[in-house]
Amino acid sequence: MKKNVKTDTPPIRIIPLGGLEQIGINITAFETGDSIMVVDCGLGFPEDDMYGVDLVIPDVTYLEENIERVKGFVITHGHEDHIGALPYILRKVNVPVYATKLTMGIIEHKLEEHGMLESTTRKVVTFGSTITLGDFHVEFIRTNHSISDAAALAIHTAQGILVHTGDFKVDYTPIYGDAIDLQRFGELGKKGVMVLMCDSTNAERAGFTPSESTVGEAFNTIFENNRNKRLIIATFASNVDRVQQIINTACRYGRKCVIEGRSMVNVIKTATELEYLQVPEHTLIELDELRNYPEEQTVIITTGSQGERLAALSRMAAGTHKKIVLGPKDAVVFSSHPIPGNEKAVTRIVNEIFHKGADVVFQDAHVSGHACQEEIKLIYALTRPKFALPVHGEYKHLKAQAKIAQQMGVEKENIFIVQSGDVLELKDEQLKKTGHVNSGVVFVDGLGVGDVGNVVLRDRQRLADDGIMLITFALDGENRIVAGPEIVTRGFVYVKEADELLEDIHMLVDDTVMEHFERNNTGGRSKLKNSIKEAVSDFVWEKTQRRPMVLPVILDIT
Amino acid sequence: MKKNVKTDTPPIRIIPLGGLEQIGINITAFETGDSIMVVDCGLGFPEDDMYGVDLVIPDVTYLEENIERVKGFVITHGHEDHIGALPYILRKVNVPVYATKLTMGIIEHKLEEHGMLESTTRKVVTFGSTITLGDFHVEFIRTNHSISDAAALAIHTAQGILVHTGDFKVDYTPIYGDAIDLQRFGELGKKGVMVLMCDSTNAERAGFTPSESTVGEAFNTIFENNRNKRLIIATFASNVDRVQQIINTACRYGRKCVIEGRSMVNVIKTATELEYLQVPEHTLIELDELRNYPEEQTVIITTGSQGERLAALSRMAAGTHKKIVLGPKDAVVFSSHPIPGNEKAVTRIVNEIFHKGADVVFQDAHVSGHACQEEIKLIYALTRPKFALPVHGEYKHLKAQAKIAQQMGVEKENIFIVQSGDVLELKDEQLKKTGHVNSGVVFVDGLGVGDVGNVVLRDRQRLADDGIMLITFALDGENRIVAGPEIVTRGFVYVKEADELLEDIHMLVDDTVMEHFERNNTGGRSKLKNSIKEAVSDFVWEKTQRRPMVLPVILDIT
Repeated sequence: MKKNVKTDTPPIRIIPLGGLEQIGINITAFETGDSIMVVDCGLGFPEDDMYGVDLVIPDVTYLEENIERVKGFVITHGHEDHIGALPYILRKVNVPVYATKLTMGIIEHKLEEHGMLESTTRKVVTFGSTITLGDFHVEFIRTNHSISDAAALAIHTAQGILVHTGDFKVDYTPIYGDAIDLQRFGELGKKGVMVLMCDSTNAERAGFTPSESTVGEAFNTIFENNRNKRLIIATFASNVDRVQQIINTACRYGRKCVIEGRSMVNVIKTATELEYLQVPEHTLIELDELRNYPEEQTVIITTGSQGERLAALSRMAAGTHKKIVLGPKDAVVFSSHPIPGNEKAVTRIVNEIFHKGADVVFQDAHVSGHACQEEIKLIYALTRPKFALPVHGEYKHLKAQAKIAQQMGVEKENIFIVQSGDVLELKDEQLKKTGHVNSGVVFVDGLGVGDVGNVVLRDRQRLADDGIMLITFALDGENRIVAGPEIVTRGFVYVKEADELLEDIHMLVDDTVMEHFERNNTGGRSKLKNSIKEAVSDFVWEKTQRRPMVLPVILDIT
Repeated sequence: MKKNVKTDTPPIRIIPLGGLEQIGINITAFETGDSIMVVDCGLGFPEDDMYGVDLVIPDVTYLEENIERVKGFVITHGHEDHIGALPYILRKVNVPVYATKLTMGIIEHKLEEHGMLESTTRKVVTFGSTITLGDFHVEFIRTNHSISDAAALAIHTAQGILVHTGDFKVDYTPIYGDAIDLQRFGELGKKGVMVLMCDSTNAERAGFTPSESTVGEAFNTIFENNRNKRLIIATFASNVDRVQQIINTACRYGRKCVIEGRSMVNVIKTATELEYLQVPEHTLIELDELRNYPEEQTVIITTGSQGERLAALSRMAAGTHKKIVLGPKDAVVFSSHPIPGNEKAVTRIVNEIFHKGADVVFQDAHVSGHACQEEIKLIYALTRPKFALPVHGEYKHLKAQAKIAQQMGVEKENIFIVQSGDVLELKDEQLKKTGHVNSGVVFVDGLGVGDVGNVVLRDRQRLADDGIMLITFALDGENRIVAGPEIVTRGFVYVKEADELLEDIHMLVDDTVMEHFERNNTGGRSKLKNSIKEAVSDFVWEKTQRRPMVLPVILDIT
């Protein structure tokens, strides 16, 4: 490893465009000279107060402005928080996408749904191989995660090696494929790793995340203890290895399996075609075939483990599923833990399932897909980076990893906790924050991408809290009210019980209009509207302690 | 215990009016002949989709309709989910309130805030004594909980003894007062307990809840490990014993304490006046005095441990607290666990605290106030009830206790999981469900109690999701549009970027009106409004996949 040798080569810029403020929206640009390459392109889910927003995607203005230099997207694995924004971003930044086989299969399915398969250049990469994107040489290294084919990246540059772990865990006994390529991490470490960008999701948790294969043992117990029940097992749609283990156990116990829930059906289809899932013949049956088998000889593998309202399990629990009716012969297994924020939704479903007379199995049948502290330490021990740039997580997770990095010998001043948009520059073995670019998030609501912004959201919050009150009237050329005022409310108060209040508001509007023109007969409409808004808002607040949006609409009859 | 002896005495009716569908809104009526007495009168907090609702209180129509028979409210302890609805319910059902000393102190503070202290008859009851409410004799039995002075009730009736545990745990080494009076539970059991109504909150959890005093040991470690920091400890406002332990530890470490957060200041004032809290002289200081002491010699005890947006800790974390600025010299301790549903709010604050450079101490410094499985078993073992009626909890909690009751020898058919409003009748040693009365919840929003119902909530949900679109125009006597249509949207789309869409809608409205009158010149306004609503909604859905509320307002100029 060269030390303190000044070079003439341009610096490497690392520009995270998302993923440092929350779990999700993972996207990082790497830039040197004329080359920009982007790692991941994920979406996020809306916060509770982002009413009506379906998805959140990164603001990639920076990439759009530098489109001619962008060489491609390199995707680490097939989860929504790493691929989900691709269909939106590729419309503006149409560059090739690189990924491993299963990851690409899932991306292709997504692009197909958006009618973008033809217009997108896609290149499947194998583990161990290196692709060239301008001045970057990006090597794919096998890792383990809660989806197969997850990759870490070694980004070879003129300024040294950068390692990006993607989402990962260390699984010595994975269900599909090999264990994480720890040797290669070690080899890279020996060569000298400049910057390590490591997954922080579980950095607060001590110890090691257990192997996915331990869940298989849990399934054995569950199947054994529920021999007389139909089993309904809910898990993440994309966890192919989990589905594999359920299928394996079902086979051992002579049960037929149904896959239910659109997203799981899609992923399983892709995984089966690409041979990431091995299903013994006559094991999978169609939903409609369920009735041909005794209940205790079947397993339903389903989406909805997070209590998502529209997912299959929610519909079963609510009694609105068209084909599956829960009852005393059913045992429901959550092969998942609630993601923070989903606890109440999951509890709601558990209560509903119990109401239906079905059992809920509380035995733990889940392991995380992310590295805990000891695994993170292992990666630091192998790569021995000069600089640490914790990624993937909320601030508290990044902080937790920073602490680990320090324990593992990275100098405190060489650990960078940055925000999305920050620009870090690596040159001559020095990493420095040198600037900031446009970044942020864009809301997707229905077909609209970016047309719901903060103003619209604030209005929705206001409407949600206290509703709206419309005040409409028509004025003639002499500024006399010739029709109305009509007062209409929605989400404010049950009108039949608020006659008196509305009567009072009616008079208040009349008076306000009259006063306005007495004092000010020029008749500026916006001033009149403001007077009405203020008078009515104050009056309503005094009477109800609520602040509905007051919206006067004045029609001019000429 | 008499067996199978028919009596002429009237039956005892048990009518839970709340508390069986969720945590909160605890209220149960007991009725026999001319006597009704009510145990607890709690509030609930709104679910996520109850937009704008501040509080949820029980529907007590049944009590109002039988007001002349209602003898009083018996309150088990001073938590909001047991006393919070009193100020609303007493307005309609103004009967005496019975409670132990601290509980009454807290109730009185609440009544005072509502200007209802004078109008409410209040009677303080000591442990071990029995009050008579018509044909009911209600004995107060000491228990332990996360607030002092919690009581279980033995309700002595002509049909036998009913035991209601209230919220409880078994704490052999409580901070204030004595341990739960297990002997009395045993004595009652020997006499024969007909019905046990037992707290289900922790019925899913194995083992024993640790003593409150174990938290003191945690505080010792935390104070020891943070000798150079100011400590900010967040906990539940009403947990007087917790505050006592913080104060005790602070004294040992020579630190001054500040109490911050309105609700905590109130409870601590009441507890101090009633001598439930022992504060050594010169330990408590005012917020403004903080600056007179080195940071590492102070402790701030605060509300906001659940991430409540307006609580003191939230304001400190957000940097909006007027007098407390967080920084690297601070360590924040959560002496609490997030209540399900609050996880994300707590996480948000943790991130904000880290951002301020302060430390968050993750060491566990909390114990639950509710009995786990082994404690519930203990109560069953002591009382040996003939019938079990699990209370306080969601359906899954009630189910979990039902399982315990069965393990403890209660006959399966003698275990009742009922819903609010169900009427259970105890007569001749038989308990049966015999009917159902009006029950449910009432929403409190601002000053309005009950004027926000399901229609208003549905409107708020719709408004929150997609906003509103107003379409206003004026028609003359000939059904010609003489002003408008004006199209105004809120919470739908950022208008400046939706010119074209609004233009199209404008034309669509014109066309729809014209067509309507061409086909149907009688001019029914509501039919015209529906046509506009339908046409515009369909068009907007097609263009945006959103469903804003479309609200046409037509003014008639005559």
